[in-house]
Amino acid sequence: MRVLVTGFEPFGGMDINPTAQLAEVLSKEGVSGIELHSATLPVVYGTCVQQLITKIEELSPDVVIACGLAFGRAAVTLERIGINIKDTAGEGQKGDNQGDKPVDEKIIPEGPDGLFSTLPIRKMMNDLQEEGIPASISNSAGTYICNNTLYGVLHYIAEKKLQTKAGFIHFPATPDMTVNKPNVPSMAFETQLKALRTIVQSLTV
Amino acid sequence: MRVLVTGFEPFGGMDINPTAQLAEVLSKEGVSGIELHSATLPVVYGTCVQQLITKIEELSPDVVIACGLAFGRAAVTLERIGINIKDTAGEGQKGDNQGDKPVDEKIIPEGPDGLFSTLPIRKMMNDLQEEGIPASISNSAGTYICNNTLYGVLHYIAEKKLQTKAGFIHFPATPDMTVNKPNVPSMAFETQLKALRTIVQSLTV
Amino acid sequence: MRVLVTGFEPFGGMDINPTAQLAEVLSKEGVSGIELHSATLPVVYGTCVQQLITKIEELSPDVVIACGLAFGRAAVTLERIGINIKDTAGEGQKGDNQGDKPVDEKIIPEGPDGLFSTLPIRKMMNDLQEEGIPASISNSAGTYICNNTLYGVLHYIAEKKLQTKAGFIHFPATPDMTVNKPNVPSMAFETQLKALRTIVQSLTV
Amino acid sequence: MRVLVTGFEPFGGMDINPTAQLAEVLSKEGVSGIELHSATLPVVYGTCVQQLITKIEELSPDVVIACGLAFGRAAVTLERIGINIKDTAGEGQKGDNQGDKPVDEKIIPEGPDGLFSTLPIRKMMNDLQEEGIPASISNSAGTYICNNTLYGVLHYIAEKKLQTKAGFIHFPATPDMTVNKPNVPSMAFETQLKALRTIVQSLTV
Repeated sequence: MRVLVTGFEPFGGMDINPTAQLAEVLSKEGVSGIELHSATLPVVYGTCVQQLITKIEELSPDVVIACGLAFGRAAVTLERIGINIKDTAGEGQKGDNQGDKPVDEKIIPEGPDGLFSTLPIRKMMNDLQEEGIPASISNSAGTYICNNTLYGVLHYIAEKKLQTKAGFIHFPATPDMTVNKPNVPSMAFETQLKALRTIVQSLTV
Repeated sequence: MRVLVTGFEPFGGMDINPTAQLAEVLSKEGVSGIELHSATLPVVYGTCVQQLITKIEELSPDVVIACGLAFGRAAVTLERIGINIKDTAGEGQKGDNQGDKPVDEKIIPEGPDGLFSTLPIRKMMNDLQEEGIPASISNSAGTYICNNTLYGVLHYIAEKKLQTKAGFIHFPATPDMTVNKPNVPSMAFETQLKALRTIVQSLTV
Repeated sequence: MRVLVTGFEPFGGMDINPTAQLAEVLSKEGVSGIELHSATLPVVYGTCVQQLITKIEELSPDVVIACGLAFGRAAVTLERIGINIKDTAGEGQKGDNQGDKPVDEKIIPEGPDGLFSTLPIRKMMNDLQEEGIPASISNSAGTYICNNTLYGVLHYIAEKKLQTKAGFIHFPATPDMTVNKPNVPSMAFETQLKALRTIVQSLTV
Repeated sequence: MRVLVTGFEPFGGMDINPTAQLAEVLSKEGVSGIELHSATLPVVYGTCVQQLITKIEELSPDVVIACGLAFGRAAVTLERIGINIKDTAGEGQKGDNQGDKPVDEKIIPEGPDGLFSTLPIRKMMNDLQEEGIPASISNSAGTYICNNTLYGVLHYIAEKKLQTKAGFIHFPATPDMTVNKPNVPSMAFETQLKALRTIVQSLTV
């Protein structure tokens, strides 16, 4: 089974985005029974999906697991749905890394309103919890780049009638990102790496 | 320098209290330049302080670092003050491990209302943050066993006019305690252990 | 313009659901320029949508504003999307008022994954904020009865190719519901009623 | 019975501090059986306590109820203790209204570490809850001006051996302060006013 795992570059004024490293480190370590590839995507509405599609065309993966940072969440959250909206009008929301600040715009003007992840998210959640890792299903990936990537890749796969499974996982901040933000939850990089490995292994059992 | 580090037994229906293990593991590993001792205290109003005092009389430590679990907090929190009150009337508060449920009772009827920690909590906070560990000073250790222990030991030291420094550190839940509580922050045991080591090392530099 | 405003009966062991009263009180008071009707829906997966549809068939409203309680939210939240899922597996989630506890089931087996609210939610949010009422757009109505009702009514309207606009608004708990839950936000009934009036008036200006 | 109720001027970049108005409006309305006075205090470490003492010397009240804003809290919170510290080093903490930013300084160099409120806070909490108002006892008034005022007035009363009872009540933000901060709890001014009236009436029954 060929699996593509992606992370993102930093955004929102933060120096770090652990998801780029997570994808890279896990693909170097490897997961038994999986041909694992990784990529880092830009935090830019205009290019994030296209770069992921290029990677998919190049690799023809069976499964795409896109990973992003959810600063403020305490658990690994498995996104259920991508929605057809770009919106940066929410509280504290900055524009993307090129300054784009869409409000209530459709990602694909003629696309459906929402598209479900095709990953086995309930099984992945159970597997994570059995490994002692806080995890839940999330019903909103927001309206920023993460949701944009999730919706975009699901729409591409549907349009092309590919067999590829795809979905999105949100990871908490790492402790080094919250040293002086005592109310913001974090999760050790090692725990996050174990989580991503567990998620990939979920595909094979 | 002789240092006594204490943790607590589990309470409130939880199977685990990482602080007992933290104290034990660190004292086994040792910290350079420190003669380190550990003990596990009961989560019982009536005996927690007395057991700690017995340990102090036995060891005559220079410093006492009592550690407790703060389920729901995201950072290592260095308590500033113990207050002369036992109260379990707050939301969701259960009684202690022997079913004692005091409401608005004084710990020491003639004692002062509050007693400050004598640990270098600002320095410890800075040292933790430099190590990449989320940390802050807390201005309330609650009114449960943790506060009771902090106030009790500070009162004992003051009464006996000892030179011993003492204080209390709250640690978050570990991830295994929050697997299906996705909104409750946690911190990896390894990070917590590094935190406790950093706190002890703060005493020597 | 004919508008149908709905609330729900109590659920989850609570005695009160302010949304039933909100709909009823506002429809009695009336809103200038609007023919206002109200209804109370059951918190039951199997009947909530059907009862709403029966009401729509009876009244042929131009607009349907379904209202529900979001215990724990601090602001009036205007839902953007209903998703095709019934799920009560989340933390602390109880079954519906007849004990039904679906997990990851589709509401409409052949329905689309998501359906956007057709209310002017951005305008409504701005109007609420101008009235001094905390408000935001929400990207998840959850997977309980509220989402079920939102998705169900939007699907019915789409299937029947009606011109009816429809959407869902979540309201916070009222203060009487949180008297001894000091960490749970609430909003005065009077503020909520003003909010609902503002939302209905948003349709006319 | 003569009662002095105080509020504060705005601070921290906010335009409003509802507590000044609460004290003023309630004293104008009056409370049966109470000779009620009000005052507005400055959000300045150096003068807040002195202005309150001047008022006490002028009026010789039986009871002093100082009120302050706790932006972010959801309930009316009755402070249990004032502590002998001024500290603005916490997250997001700004200096006072004259730019003073003390870190870990004592309020009264030779004062005790903590001083308990002498108001009947448990009874007040029960009375508030019976009126349907979210309320709890708080074990930390922070380390900013509110705590400074509480500690300062309690210390003055103790030094002068007055019979005056005194304490501090924290009130949530009002909804107009959180219109575009959907995660910050608020409480209607009318509810807050009812709360303050209930608190004053608690003294007489």
